Amino acid sequence: MNTASIYHRPESEFAYLYSDTTMRIRLRTSKDDVKQVYVISGDPYTIFSKNWYLEEVPMKKGLSTLLHDYWEIELTSDTRRLQYGFHIVGIDGMDCFYGDQGIFPYQKETLANANYYFRMPYFQQIDLFMVPEWAKQTIWYQIFPERFANGDPANDPKDTLPWGSKDPDREDFFGGDLQGVIDHLDYLADLGITGIYFCPVFEATSNHKYDTIDYYAVDPQFGDKELLKELITKAHEKGIRIMLDAVFNHMGSHSPQWQDVIEHGEESRYKDWFHIHSFPVDSYELTDVPDTAENLAYDTFAFTPFMPKLNTANQEVQEYLLDIATYWVKEFDIDGWRLDVANEVDHHFWKKFREAVTSIKPDIYILGEIWHSSQAWLQGDEFHAVMNYAFMDSIKDYFVHKKITPTQMVSGMNHQQMLYRDQVNEGTFNLLDSHDTARILTLCKEDKELMKSVLAFMFLQKGAPCIYYGTEIGMTGHDDPDCRKCMIWEKDQQDLELKGFVKELICVRKQIQEILIQGDMTWQSVDDKNEQLYLTRHFNQQTIHAYFNQGTEAYMVDLENDVLFSQNCDILKDGKAEIHPNGFLILC
Amino acid sequence: MNTASIYHRPESEFAYLYSDTTMRIRLRTSKDDVKQVYVISGDPYTIFSKNWYLEEVPMKKGLSTLLHDYWEIELTSDTRRLQYGFHIVGIDGMDCFYGDQGIFPYQKETLANANYYFRMPYFQQIDLFMVPEWAKQTIWYQIFPERFANGDPANDPKDTLPWGSKDPDREDFFGGDLQGVIDHLDYLADLGITGIYFCPVFEATSNHKYDTIDYYAVDPQFGDKELLKELITKAHEKGIRIMLDAVFNHMGSHSPQWQDVIEHGEESRYKDWFHIHSFPVDSYELTDVPDTAENLAYDTFAFTPFMPKLNTANQEVQEYLLDIATYWVKEFDIDGWRLDVANEVDHHFWKKFREAVTSIKPDIYILGEIWHSSQAWLQGDEFHAVMNYAFMDSIKDYFVHKKITPTQMVSGMNHQQMLYRDQVNEGTFNLLDSHDTARILTLCKEDKELMKSVLAFMFLQKGAPCIYYGTEIGMTGHDDPDCRKCMIWEKDQQDLELKGFVKELICVRKQIQEILIQGDMTWQSVDDKNEQLYLTRHFNQQTIHAYFNQGTEAYMVDLENDVLFSQNCDILKDGKAEIHPNGFLILC
Repeated sequence: MNTASIYHRPESEFAYLYSDTTMRIRLRTSKDDVKQVYVISGDPYTIFSKNWYLEEVPMKKGLSTLLHDYWEIELTSDTRRLQYGFHIVGIDGMDCFYGDQGIFPYQKETLANANYYFRMPYFQQIDLFMVPEWAKQTIWYQIFPERFANGDPANDPKDTLPWGSKDPDREDFFGGDLQGVIDHLDYLADLGITGIYFCPVFEATSNHKYDTIDYYAVDPQFGDKELLKELITKAHEKGIRIMLDAVFNHMGSHSPQWQDVIEHGEESRYKDWFHIHSFPVDSYELTDVPDTAENLAYDTFAFTPFMPKLNTANQEVQEYLLDIATYWVKEFDIDGWRLDVANEVDHHFWKKFREAVTSIKPDIYILGEIWHSSQAWLQGDEFHAVMNYAFMDSIKDYFVHKKITPTQMVSGMNHQQMLYRDQVNEGTFNLLDSHDTARILTLCKEDKELMKSVLAFMFLQKGAPCIYYGTEIGMTGHDDPDCRKCMIWEKDQQDLELKGFVKELICVRKQIQEILIQGDMTWQSVDDKNEQLYLTRHFNQQTIHAYFNQGTEAYMVDLENDVLFSQNCDILKDGKAEIHPNGFLILC
Repeated sequence: MNTASIYHRPESEFAYLYSDTTMRIRLRTSKDDVKQVYVISGDPYTIFSKNWYLEEVPMKKGLSTLLHDYWEIELTSDTRRLQYGFHIVGIDGMDCFYGDQGIFPYQKETLANANYYFRMPYFQQIDLFMVPEWAKQTIWYQIFPERFANGDPANDPKDTLPWGSKDPDREDFFGGDLQGVIDHLDYLADLGITGIYFCPVFEATSNHKYDTIDYYAVDPQFGDKELLKELITKAHEKGIRIMLDAVFNHMGSHSPQWQDVIEHGEESRYKDWFHIHSFPVDSYELTDVPDTAENLAYDTFAFTPFMPKLNTANQEVQEYLLDIATYWVKEFDIDGWRLDVANEVDHHFWKKFREAVTSIKPDIYILGEIWHSSQAWLQGDEFHAVMNYAFMDSIKDYFVHKKITPTQMVSGMNHQQMLYRDQVNEGTFNLLDSHDTARILTLCKEDKELMKSVLAFMFLQKGAPCIYYGTEIGMTGHDDPDCRKCMIWEKDQQDLELKGFVKELICVRKQIQEILIQGDMTWQSVDDKNEQLYLTRHFNQQTIHAYFNQGTEAYMVDLENDVLFSQNCDILKDGKAEIHPNGFLILC
């Protein structure tokens, strides 16, 4: 047995409360190396009075990667305390005990050593990681406000280009605004989405508004506070939640605070609001800011001189940002905050942030922009979720980029899921594209059927799916800024067949959401040769069967359940279905 | 290569800031399986502009366990941001890249994928785990106040037994008090200790005072607040820090709060201060409390009816306890809090606790009583250290209990050290015994020479050593309550030779403390057959050599350095030393 590969970590995604009264435990072993794992557990104070160390319960083999199997079990405790260890039996017949002090021979002397067990010292409800239920159920729609719809030409900035008149360059303005969104709320409600994630709407210089000037003001190019309130109220009436974008890692260089630093240098009362290495700081005219510059006298987002990094360890900055964070919740009833460049802001701040916003709205959703593995932010006291790029990478690498095999995709997806507690995976934010990436249809080389497959595949996963504006009508676009084209509103230029597909997909997700959110995922068949995938989702006696054909041959499936949704698939008379290449079939 | 055994975890003890400008990285591989590990790193935004992914730096092989090798490196970054991955070369010649998305072939295409690298997004000074420097340098001395010295018979409780007249039973009182400690501060200063850890001194019913009645009052059997203030002032004058014991997991059943619950049941304003399942709660007369009881109507410490568990998720309880925590720091200038049953109190509370006490005294020391692995509490925002029983277990299992081989001991010690950041290991609290365990001399079957060896061995480790009162004069005692005998003050009954040894050991630790705190540990020779150990500690061009002979044959050592300290060791004329069984030799 490969004992060196065994891993468990108490009080982490390997051992956590799932509800007030249940904890879930995971154990990692080497792939196909272990026949069975048993858990031995009981109250730490009764190991000898009850001799629980002599009893064991089998764990279930859950997800696997190319290198590892993960074993899982749910436990409870009458006394709300638990000690636990593992009895691991290898396929080679060897067995061992694994606990808090490592690997030991599986024998009575080992089992009877109270110090050898891992601990869940007490089931602390306050430490339970809770993700808002509504967030798990949401179908998100991401809007880049400058490009969604121009509802009010009166607020257009100077030199606004005619809507959709060209592919966007970095500095272009097309006049999109909040009125445009209000005007199309019916469109969104009809599509079926239940949450809007807005890129920044606060006053800023650029078209993307990630260089905030005033966090308390709606950008006048987009409208004003009244209009935002109207938008939120109307969205809520339609059952659509609103998430705004908080850009707290940095400010715009045109903010009064940074301008004060430029003007007064070391005498500025804002000098400690930033990370400044020497005075005077470098400054640029609006028309003359280089895209990147190294060795600046201050820290910035990336190497972007017009985005000076905020010092969130400074108490004034903390108070300032927390006031903003709570202001928009209190006064505008927003439902979520998406946190820009969240990984580069300190953990102390995010803990305070969470406490501040949840104290006003306990079921607010906090979503961090983090592209890499994010355990440090997902322990229950910072975010609820991250933008799940890392998980989606595997899916895209297989379906879209054709870089990896189905087996490698499954391994990558499972690897990501095993980094987090189950409730995190249930509430995470899955996306195929965004304002920061090329559009999925473009990545699919405009193969619409492929795009449908990958969309459907995303919708079948744990985690709330997000549709980037325009995806539903077939919009294309390469990397930023090309992925930020103006939304197409002329019906004859919209792909209405695709829109129908997306609408139906949303319907299907809602119909079986309980299973998709909480259900087990089992990979029934991952056929690398024929590129045919069969997975099931199972919850409460209900099972969803999903088949995807990414190969070149027909994929024949026995129809033992009702057809829920399919694409490129013929239902045959003999109780079979033939899934054509790029097709899929969902049964239930 | 055993790729399944490879492990790294970003933002944990595997990747952390060690100072404002440096981060330390660890990687776990299978024991003796890997020839070399290299780290590939750079700023996340310059991977292609600087092509840093084409460069690599070798890591150093650090500590090993029976199953694993740990590789280490210290990195810095001009931009305070870092991405990093590992190039791992097996002894079988195979190599691979390991990063944020797992193991991949070591090839340019892999290296050039920016998403494949782990991240230290920004060197956040506020998130840096800082352990007070003084705490790393402290020689602790634990006092159980009821048994250290009776300085004032006037405050003796009814039925106080004559000092040392018998071995203690659970309910005995012998009259120890704070005046007794004040009277012997010179004794402690002369011994060389620099910190006192006091078991509880607040008003409580029992002799151990872990069943608090009033957290704002010194127990009248021990003295009063004035006396405690005098003790602290005088101790500080002698360079001795004071750490008090905070029993926040539970209260005593005689506290007014619990008595109110007993009296008023569901109408009590304190009913939410505890974890009560039904009313009326079970209650007991003082003279009639069972030691344990199951299925109580409320949660307790262990199954102890007179210790009802506090609900630290309740805001009033939080405010109450935080006021206590800060009161004794503000008004009495204590230097540390030892937190009783710290693992069973929620993390939210400890985070607030840390913030509250460090805001008053930034260099206060927070020590949690946790016997098992404690990563969850040692991330920088809760404790500085835990009572390091788990680390000391390996040492005791080898030296004292003779249950394991030297190799197994080293493996166990290294396993524990690799659970924590280096600064945690530097400031942790090492102890061979306490009021909760049998005394070390008794565990050594009264083999004083063995006890000297294991004491010296503890003093050579990272972590501040603690001496349990009376150890220095040869006190014995089995498990609680026998380990709580009255301190022996009659010189003719004290083991003065042993006391001289302890004094010298303390002197030696102070003399070379910089090396012992920060220095590398290298196991030069671990000889299971002859039970001879040779380890070095190295820092800033200085090396300490330590040899321990736990075998039955003489251990001959070349004297290539100056003798710093030895026991049971003959310095021979030919430049050699002969360490007898149970002896040791320290050179520098």
